[in-house]
Amino acid sequence: MMDQERFAKQLAFILEADKEKNILRQTHLSGHGRRENDAEHAWHMAMMIYLLREYSNAPFDVAKAMMMALIHDIVEIDAGDTYAYDTKGLETQKEREQKAAERIFGLLPEDQKNELMLLFAEFEEGETMEACFARAMDNFQPLLLNHSNGGEDWRAHQVNRSQVAGRQRTTGLGSEEIWNYTQSIIDENVDKGNIRKE
Amino acid sequence: MMDQERFAKQLAFILEADKEKNILRQTHLSGHGRRENDAEHAWHMAMMIYLLREYSNAPFDVAKAMMMALIHDIVEIDAGDTYAYDTKGLETQKEREQKAAERIFGLLPEDQKNELMLLFAEFEEGETMEACFARAMDNFQPLLLNHSNGGEDWRAHQVNRSQVAGRQRTTGLGSEEIWNYTQSIIDENVDKGNIRKE
Repeated sequence: MMDQERFAKQLAFILEADKEKNILRQTHLSGHGRRENDAEHAWHMAMMIYLLREYSNAPFDVAKAMMMALIHDIVEIDAGDTYAYDTKGLETQKEREQKAAERIFGLLPEDQKNELMLLFAEFEEGETMEACFARAMDNFQPLLLNHSNGGEDWRAHQVNRSQVAGRQRTTGLGSEEIWNYTQSIIDENVDKGNIRKE
Repeated sequence: MMDQERFAKQLAFILEADKEKNILRQTHLSGHGRRENDAEHAWHMAMMIYLLREYSNAPFDVAKAMMMALIHDIVEIDAGDTYAYDTKGLETQKEREQKAAERIFGLLPEDQKNELMLLFAEFEEGETMEACFARAMDNFQPLLLNHSNGGEDWRAHQVNRSQVAGRQRTTGLGSEEIWNYTQSIIDENVDKGNIRKE
């Protein structure tokens, strides 16, 4: 027999997570589309983890990394999206997101709350291979969309090479090969004037 | 060294998949929100597979079922969303989706094309435990959203009990427990007049 109280908690979390579909990012969809939301970004990332896993620096647990990707932005339901180059927002991001994680993952039964809190923390710390590869895809997914749109998001925010490279550099911890490719994309967009030289 | 031709094919597929974010479903987001798109639905389903796997009728490969969920609607980029109660659309759905699968998965390198074609076919056939549980979540996710919105999608389409139960009945092949719960939700919405008696 199903534990009704446990199931109700799981459904409460699943319904709360629905709100992530309304959290907009700075990235635009391919084809010069509208702004992307967190759920779409996470879906894309999880699929990329599966399809590009052969480029990982080392083998990893694919289901774990995919789930990490699916839940890594849920805290933004409370904490909002902090743009990668918003230095003021970045100062308070950790604290805001930790509080959000407590409330939102706290809707789940205790064991799953703990599991997802650990999974979220593991992603943030970026030390395990699962976290490193998931973070590489977190960097690479918007880079790919933005590059496909002629670098319009970089131009709109007038970012420079060291900012983009700084944001993307953790990709190398997940995949040296995708980091090499990323650098060629950055170079190309500097040459085209989409990313400022310095 | 990375095989550049192989990587280019993978990126072409990943960018093409981005278009799934513009395919709208009949389901509305919780809180009486806008219509949901396929990517958001797939993201939610994959997360539910992970969180609710304890209710599966039998153990299954979680990463495989999650990937199945993430890609199961990609064919709709070409074939469009066919509403569960659109009998005319349902007649040609299989043919339209098979053609789309060939084109879209065909962007990938041969081995991954074959892998995703098989994964998509396995989902459609619904015989393995991975497919049965993924299909259960494909049913349960919109039911949950619609129920949270007071059954407004059922009312808008004036569907009756046998239509809803017919659409949802495969849930039992993935999870008897979630099928029991589904039946209680259907009963409740029939009692409230959101779903027609017959």
